[in-house]
Amino acid sequence: MSIITFIGAGQMASALTFPAVENGNKVRLVGTPLDRDIIKTASTTGFHPTLKRQLPKEGIEYYQIEDVYKALQDTDFVLCGVSSFGVDWFADNILGLIPENVPILSVTKGMIEMEDGSMITYPQYFTSKLPKGKKLSINAIGGPCTSYELADKDNSAVVFCGDDINILRKLKSLFQTSYYHVSLSTDVVGVECAVALKNAYALGVSLAIGLAIGPDGNGKEHYNSQAALFGQSVKEMRHLLRLVGGGEENIIYGAGDLYVTIFGGRTRRLGILLGQGLTFKEAKEKLEGVTLESIVIATRTGNCVRRMAERGLVSLEDFPLLMHIHDIITNGATVDIPWKAFEIENV
Amino acid sequence: MSIITFIGAGQMASALTFPAVENGNKVRLVGTPLDRDIIKTASTTGFHPTLKRQLPKEGIEYYQIEDVYKALQDTDFVLCGVSSFGVDWFADNILGLIPENVPILSVTKGMIEMEDGSMITYPQYFTSKLPKGKKLSINAIGGPCTSYELADKDNSAVVFCGDDINILRKLKSLFQTSYYHVSLSTDVVGVECAVALKNAYALGVSLAIGLAIGPDGNGKEHYNSQAALFGQSVKEMRHLLRLVGGGEENIIYGAGDLYVTIFGGRTRRLGILLGQGLTFKEAKEKLEGVTLESIVIATRTGNCVRRMAERGLVSLEDFPLLMHIHDIITNGATVDIPWKAFEIENV
Repeated sequence: MSIITFIGAGQMASALTFPAVENGNKVRLVGTPLDRDIIKTASTTGFHPTLKRQLPKEGIEYYQIEDVYKALQDTDFVLCGVSSFGVDWFADNILGLIPENVPILSVTKGMIEMEDGSMITYPQYFTSKLPKGKKLSINAIGGPCTSYELADKDNSAVVFCGDDINILRKLKSLFQTSYYHVSLSTDVVGVECAVALKNAYALGVSLAIGLAIGPDGNGKEHYNSQAALFGQSVKEMRHLLRLVGGGEENIIYGAGDLYVTIFGGRTRRLGILLGQGLTFKEAKEKLEGVTLESIVIATRTGNCVRRMAERGLVSLEDFPLLMHIHDIITNGATVDIPWKAFEIENV
Repeated sequence: MSIITFIGAGQMASALTFPAVENGNKVRLVGTPLDRDIIKTASTTGFHPTLKRQLPKEGIEYYQIEDVYKALQDTDFVLCGVSSFGVDWFADNILGLIPENVPILSVTKGMIEMEDGSMITYPQYFTSKLPKGKKLSINAIGGPCTSYELADKDNSAVVFCGDDINILRKLKSLFQTSYYHVSLSTDVVGVECAVALKNAYALGVSLAIGLAIGPDGNGKEHYNSQAALFGQSVKEMRHLLRLVGGGEENIIYGAGDLYVTIFGGRTRRLGILLGQGLTFKEAKEKLEGVTLESIVIATRTGNCVRRMAERGLVSLEDFPLLMHIHDIITNGATVDIPWKAFEIENV
């Protein structure tokens, strides 16, 4: 039995309370300043208003953010449950409070672009934000797993990545269940790059759905064009993995995650609207209030690749789909899939 | 303008008449002995009864099999349009009739297991069946493309593979259109292995759909478990590609083709029935009359891997999903996904 302090009570963190509690751990679920209502409701009724599920009855203690010190007292592990939009808040307000012997497991997926055009993982970013001399074991979860289905105990296969295999094994023992299957990897860059990229490319594949159903939405959904964009996505993702120095075998997480994200909801909805002919601005207005990490990731990755191209490190011709997605998002370009640019000769 | 003789008037060959005719070629569509009714109907009404589409009005001549000699006279190219079940018929009855200067493009996907447990591509198989001393250029089409959607001119990306890049470029010029996008590859083994395997693995991923909706079909479809099986499929396919000596970059065709096959119809229906709890025998009875190449491929690939394992060349532990699919098909095993066997440590 371990004590695990969850910082952030969003959907994914809260879904992870199921396997955590099932393994006999004690979960302290701490809301961020944005989670105030969630903690209020869940602590009195057990119901999580955005995950739309009853959380486990036993084994969870609820905390508002002002009680974070109490929640971190004598804790064994910290789960960082914020989204991409909350990482700076977590870095500035929480990292400093965590003792050196307490490993962190982060659910935040993705990479951050640095000013020089390189990209780093969130574990690397968090490490760079630590007070001088402080050391923390910062690990992350990758792989295809939506929070609703995890809460419903659908079989899910994920990967925990970090520098120390022994800490990863310990983290796995906290969470693995008959439905939550955990692989381990010390290739943090490879895993995080693969799972980050799928956000951008899920948007790309979804364009084909919008193109097929058309502006009135009455057209028939086609799969050849989706499959073509799926294959092109895998091709570009493999290439990007090589560029960041991640192992190409991580494409298994990227492809699986791409698959689930295409069926996932928000990113798909945006891609369809764009494919139907809306501009990025119009589509975003239509989805108002929805947080879209895919946009952040696609923009960052596109910026990064463009900057690398300027420095002669890559050729933009190798990323026609990503460049088109980037153009749609940043320049308001209309959807016009560069099909012919996907054709290759492999001799 | 070229004359292209299509041998076989099944759905895929007939769908390819659209890009062929659009490029100004003259198509001679020859039915196999099994296509007699198709040729009869299509030649009088233009309607293809199994593709369920009007074929192009101009540019196609229809032939019954007894007129194959006439159809091959002065032809420039032959398209082999038979399914896996027709390759021996094609090898025994047609190959000998084709002049050496006429390149063949085959739509048949997949590989054949040899008695020693190795697998060869259909181009290799056809070549082995040629009369002594005869040489033919035998090429094949891979990549995700369903016949209905090709006939509807949905954007489709495929790959033509063969030994000679110049012949491949010529073949591409016959078929490429604004919606049919053709890459080229001289890695025949890699392409064919990737696209063959997806048949077996599409069955594997579909199991998760049946498991989620349950025996009564009323359950909710989940995606985490599908994505987990998708990722595992990509992992095993990459491994198998290495084993047969194909380039790993061909995973882009395998993954795209896997994606479209999961949504494709027959293989998906079988996988769902198995996931819902039917035995293979029961499921096959329920789908009576449906040809299931996926079964042929899964059985062959499973046999091949098992035999390689007996000879110490591979470890069966690297293919837990394929082995489970094989067990379901050949031994009537009930579905019980070996989730824990998918977990890996990548250190």
